[in-house]
Amino acid sequence: MPATTPNLDRLFRPRAVAIAGASTNVDSPGHDYVRSLQVFGFEGPVYPLNLKADEVAGFRAYPNLREVPGEVDLVISCVPAGAVLDLVEQCGATGVPFLHLFTARFSETGDEQAAELERTIERRAAELGVRILGPNGMGLYHPAAGLAFRPDLPTDRGGVAFLSQSGNNAVEVILRGNARGLHFGKVVNYGNGKDITPGEMLRYLADDPETIAIGAYVEGVPDGRGFFEGLCAAAARKPVVIHKAGRTSAGARSAASHTAALAGAAGLWSTVIRQAGALEARSQEQLLDLLVGAALLPAPKGNRIAVVGGGGGRSVQSADACEESGLEVVPLPADVREKVRERAPQLADWIGNPVDQSILAGSGVSSNGLLEMMLASDAYDLGIANIGEDWFLGRPDAEERLRHACNRLMAAVKASPKPVAVVLGPTETTNARYRAIIDTVRDELTAGGMGIFYSVERAAFALGQIVARNQGRE
Amino acid sequence: MPATTPNLDRLFRPRAVAIAGASTNVDSPGHDYVRSLQVFGFEGPVYPLNLKADEVAGFRAYPNLREVPGEVDLVISCVPAGAVLDLVEQCGATGVPFLHLFTARFSETGDEQAAELERTIERRAAELGVRILGPNGMGLYHPAAGLAFRPDLPTDRGGVAFLSQSGNNAVEVILRGNARGLHFGKVVNYGNGKDITPGEMLRYLADDPETIAIGAYVEGVPDGRGFFEGLCAAAARKPVVIHKAGRTSAGARSAASHTAALAGAAGLWSTVIRQAGALEARSQEQLLDLLVGAALLPAPKGNRIAVVGGGGGRSVQSADACEESGLEVVPLPADVREKVRERAPQLADWIGNPVDQSILAGSGVSSNGLLEMMLASDAYDLGIANIGEDWFLGRPDAEERLRHACNRLMAAVKASPKPVAVVLGPTETTNARYRAIIDTVRDELTAGGMGIFYSVERAAFALGQIVARNQGRE
Repeated sequence: MPATTPNLDRLFRPRAVAIAGASTNVDSPGHDYVRSLQVFGFEGPVYPLNLKADEVAGFRAYPNLREVPGEVDLVISCVPAGAVLDLVEQCGATGVPFLHLFTARFSETGDEQAAELERTIERRAAELGVRILGPNGMGLYHPAAGLAFRPDLPTDRGGVAFLSQSGNNAVEVILRGNARGLHFGKVVNYGNGKDITPGEMLRYLADDPETIAIGAYVEGVPDGRGFFEGLCAAAARKPVVIHKAGRTSAGARSAASHTAALAGAAGLWSTVIRQAGALEARSQEQLLDLLVGAALLPAPKGNRIAVVGGGGGRSVQSADACEESGLEVVPLPADVREKVRERAPQLADWIGNPVDQSILAGSGVSSNGLLEMMLASDAYDLGIANIGEDWFLGRPDAEERLRHACNRLMAAVKASPKPVAVVLGPTETTNARYRAIIDTVRDELTAGGMGIFYSVERAAFALGQIVARNQGRE
Repeated sequence: MPATTPNLDRLFRPRAVAIAGASTNVDSPGHDYVRSLQVFGFEGPVYPLNLKADEVAGFRAYPNLREVPGEVDLVISCVPAGAVLDLVEQCGATGVPFLHLFTARFSETGDEQAAELERTIERRAAELGVRILGPNGMGLYHPAAGLAFRPDLPTDRGGVAFLSQSGNNAVEVILRGNARGLHFGKVVNYGNGKDITPGEMLRYLADDPETIAIGAYVEGVPDGRGFFEGLCAAAARKPVVIHKAGRTSAGARSAASHTAALAGAAGLWSTVIRQAGALEARSQEQLLDLLVGAALLPAPKGNRIAVVGGGGGRSVQSADACEESGLEVVPLPADVREKVRERAPQLADWIGNPVDQSILAGSGVSSNGLLEMMLASDAYDLGIANIGEDWFLGRPDAEERLRHACNRLMAAVKASPKPVAVVLGPTETTNARYRAIIDTVRDELTAGGMGIFYSVERAAFALGQIVARNQGRE
């Protein structure tokens, strides 16, 4: 493979899209793809291909690609596996550069005839100059270009790219990431992915001005060297998080029947990811946490962390989590202690880092005030601010107090150039009022651009990994 | 300490309670304790002690303990530290066996005078035969006895005991545990805890018929041998989960200023916990996951796990999580494969363990059907059933389909004597409709007695630890 940037512009921003196997059945993928273009406001012509229907979801339908009255950059295939070869011929004959095969049941079934059909399709497409995305993948989600593989996904646009071998994992990451404030640019579920590979897409995304951070979920790669080159190119320019699945023998067996991937040794993968300067996630949760840390927070300059919020027990647990994640929980320095003494002399020798919120009550110093003092001190490189919402929930005016504290916190975080992870716990309560309060406040913090984590442990993990990766690059 | 069961019955089931420092200010602990007894339906007399008020929260108030017209088993102290010694004298004079000191600002402040006052109080109480719970702790939550340290906590009763050195951690565990279906019996936040120690309480809970499982959050213990003996006694009779905090140097420093605890070496603690036959949690999240696994699921007989649900990518990740947690992801055995062949011949050689839900569509076999077949097979000891809710959310009749699948799943789980962890992801979406659907269905599963986990990774961790602990005891 050449080291030049691959030309995938028309894949990610097609001027016109045709959907083979478009369906009038509203509960089918062949309908969803057409509806998605509508919902996401795709600006070019949309051509459903259907032998019987006159229109699908309000768009005029055509019996096949040859009857379509304009140039097409991308064909999305929902036809059965047996009909794909003819579709490839149609693409070749009409000059379509990109064919996305949502169509599945190829090599991943373990059936040799199905695998042979996949190879034949790839060979013929290569001869005709048609690039293939998939098969066995949901394809493209790129709201800025009006593309989505499901009409109910979030329509907001952003700069986080995500490459996923698995479709359900792509949907989960989009939905859950969106709730965390991650706004996506180019998302690709590439399935078996042997023609357009994740390595090629990483090389493309490395130079893509829209993309500010990249995540990838990989079960196996057909081209190890190409993947490594793409990973190095991308990680040299922006944060990249790799979630490698199929690390164990059971996982590898499962990957073979999912995307026909050869999963490969876990230890080797960790080394490769680290050497390339990327971050490694070992679960979807870690992937999301690392993307939130890398995409929403400024890069940390060192590992000395200021921790505020929550009661005494939480402070002990937070200190453990930070230190076990490679962060240094530096004791309160003299300059901060003097500032505390001016306002609350009785606390000056007792208060520590992590700051125990419960001993501040009535002292004239708030945990937000302490966070400001600590972020202003040269002793700290980064911070974790724990809301400690359970304390507020017990008070009569819980919502007002909680919102007031969060607004002050946001102001403090925004005023500092240092990264601060904000922790607001999961909505784990049977109390519907509490649930609504926590969800609402979390949405407000997220909308305000905060990087929100569900626990101090998860925030510490993400920050620790990001610091280690940055230090490794210096 | 003697090895006999300590007599703490009157502490956990006092016949009458007095609250020293009871307050008419509704936003104060001195009011909350009185209100809590009311809300939780405490059946005996309640005596607020207040020099000025005639009544507090509807109960007649008395100027001091000597004026109270009946016997008192438990005094809750919200008075300042300087007033405690006099209260101890009053307890001694009136024959009160238990004094709970919510009062704080003793040795945990690092101030030598405050530490000396604490020692004086303990010495004098011992002379007078008054047992002390605390100081610096919120005390007792025991809904079955009408006791609680906050009026807004859940009032339902159960058999899970929890000992916590930290108060905010106790509140979080109660609220979050309740949302997970953990119904609590005796919960104690014992703070500095040097008289009534966690070791003594563990010995008591070992023989307590109400208690079916025990969790403990410990920063440090004043009496290592007593703790170990209590832990061994309890873990020999019921599942015990220990969350030891203050494992790192920063954590230990923080623990000293929180509860004056001497935190001690992490490695030694892990060994002690394992030797006693208890389970070790390294975060609150792990504590809750282990309690859900130990208290809500039958004990597993081995480590061979059946995994169903979610798409292909999830299956790969689930296999990794199980194998990395010490569970054996046994391939589908011949007996199950033959049952699949009868109903869906095209899947019989493709389907594996974990079961990829996405390839079952339209096959006549559901993932619940497969779970039933796998649980019925001798090849498996336990299971994980992943709801895979994100797939349902994309369909037009999401809620009906999801509820139908969950009801079938519950029936399958209840029909089997093998433990099955149910996974329903976190409510991480900005879509309010999706949020409501997930929360409602989770509440229904929890109310149905299912052990719910937020991710396959967390379920696998908990099951893996429980299996290893049971195998270690054989």
